[in-house]
Amino acid sequence: MIYTYTLNPSIDYVMHVDAIQFGATNRSTSEIYKIGGKGINVSVVLNNLAIKNRASGFLGGFSGNFIDSELKKYQHIENDFVHTELPTRINIKIKQDVETEINGSGAAIPEDAIEALWQQIRNLPDDAFVVLSGSLAKGVPESIYIDICQYLKSRNIGFVVDTASATLLDIAKLGPVLIKPNREELEAFYNSEFADDQALIAAGKRLHADGAQHVIISLGGKGSMLICEQGIYRATVPKGTLVDSVGAGDSMIAGFVYGFTIGMSAVESFRYAAAAGSATAYSRDLATKDAINTLKDDIEIVQL
Amino acid sequence: MIYTYTLNPSIDYVMHVDAIQFGATNRSTSEIYKIGGKGINVSVVLNNLAIKNRASGFLGGFSGNFIDSELKKYQHIENDFVHTELPTRINIKIKQDVETEINGSGAAIPEDAIEALWQQIRNLPDDAFVVLSGSLAKGVPESIYIDICQYLKSRNIGFVVDTASATLLDIAKLGPVLIKPNREELEAFYNSEFADDQALIAAGKRLHADGAQHVIISLGGKGSMLICEQGIYRATVPKGTLVDSVGAGDSMIAGFVYGFTIGMSAVESFRYAAAAGSATAYSRDLATKDAINTLKDDIEIVQL
Repeated sequence: MIYTYTLNPSIDYVMHVDAIQFGATNRSTSEIYKIGGKGINVSVVLNNLAIKNRASGFLGGFSGNFIDSELKKYQHIENDFVHTELPTRINIKIKQDVETEINGSGAAIPEDAIEALWQQIRNLPDDAFVVLSGSLAKGVPESIYIDICQYLKSRNIGFVVDTASATLLDIAKLGPVLIKPNREELEAFYNSEFADDQALIAAGKRLHADGAQHVIISLGGKGSMLICEQGIYRATVPKGTLVDSVGAGDSMIAGFVYGFTIGMSAVESFRYAAAAGSATAYSRDLATKDAINTLKDDIEIVQL
Repeated sequence: MIYTYTLNPSIDYVMHVDAIQFGATNRSTSEIYKIGGKGINVSVVLNNLAIKNRASGFLGGFSGNFIDSELKKYQHIENDFVHTELPTRINIKIKQDVETEINGSGAAIPEDAIEALWQQIRNLPDDAFVVLSGSLAKGVPESIYIDICQYLKSRNIGFVVDTASATLLDIAKLGPVLIKPNREELEAFYNSEFADDQALIAAGKRLHADGAQHVIISLGGKGSMLICEQGIYRATVPKGTLVDSVGAGDSMIAGFVYGFTIGMSAVESFRYAAAAGSATAYSRDLATKDAINTLKDDIEIVQL
């Protein structure tokens, strides 16, 4: 089974305001509460592909209870979050002509909750496949992804990591099945700007040589690249109109993990990654199975 | 027993942001969740004065559950809210050098919940004392305060109403024990600016003549006035430093209701109102019993 971990989930509280005035009292015309968190998004897309998976991480307080109850609506997600007392962060998204975000810093995760998460990880079955996604809540040791990956490697459990933290290079050395940096993240990791695709590919090849089995570099509207044992591939973006790119990267992870764990080739898994990413970007919500299956036939993959 | 009704409660989500940038992603350095709603504030101050009371109104969804569980921490509050499915509104308070508020509009209250509230009101015991405070959630009929007051009058149950809505003049005619407009509200009701205290007093006297048993006009840092059968009184503001005036008006209601329902004279009840208002304004939280008792001796009340 696939296990996703979201160590810093959120509620995205979307408020529509006509014209905000600073230093004054404004009124929102309508509000939406969306559950957020990269691993949770992966779980939802896997659910949409009818792949059973278990979601864990930390949820706290009344806002955590909301995420908990929303997750229970998904038929294929087993909800296994560790609960804490203080609220999971609520991020504000103020929509007017421009969008202003204010992300909450959230409460610190207590040590016993971190230990409970480790207990879950130690109890993973041998055939587990693990997805670690997103930032870390306060109180969680910076090294936790490295520590978990080291443990998973020691048990020969496959894992995927998607984080913008500076530890990606160390994680690559631990042999993840997939890492998926975008251009900006890769540039930050290597502390240099890539002049052209060749420089990007060189950076991806380095991560692959370091140990990452598959490296997907996502390039937004310019498609994506896969670097792996079988070669270097580039996927085009299928036709469609960008609606909301939130969760597109998480959907790529889900698409790849879907293909990989049911035994597809790396290139076919990459096709599902690209299709799921676009399916999410072209809709208000996360990718559906139908959208993914429609878009995947419209994607061209060429070996470079 | 005292029954408070809050028909549009909220969570105030206070976010501290160093320097907000519009159209960008900002991070809050710390967050606090406070339960809000005028009737709830009255209940909390009554609780602090060790007066048992029952709090009702509408609470919904995960945010309503939070208010519900917070209210359960107060020993003297019986929690009797009607629950609905969609979330109670969350109001955002962004604190930096200036404070910007964005109030949620909240979900509409369904008809069966309104009927459940009426059922509670119809079941009130003869010795009930009712406090109706604050704005109305979406879906609640504009006339509900008038309708409830008419019903309470028919049953000879005492009531206090604190609302900025245009119905105050109609409510005055139904004989409330207390109404507590501030200067701005009075000016809005009468659609005119009051040049001096005499004009304010004239307006208060009119409300009293219309039927309101006691009219308190709150004037912020300039104290307050009481107009009632016994005469016209003015209370000074006790010494202290303004910390946060949120809930000060609700605390005045609680202070007056406290005195009135245990049999104090109107003037002594007014003293408690003034003391509770200042006690809240001079602290980060709502008035405590100790603060009220300390400040009340420092208030001068003169008959005009």
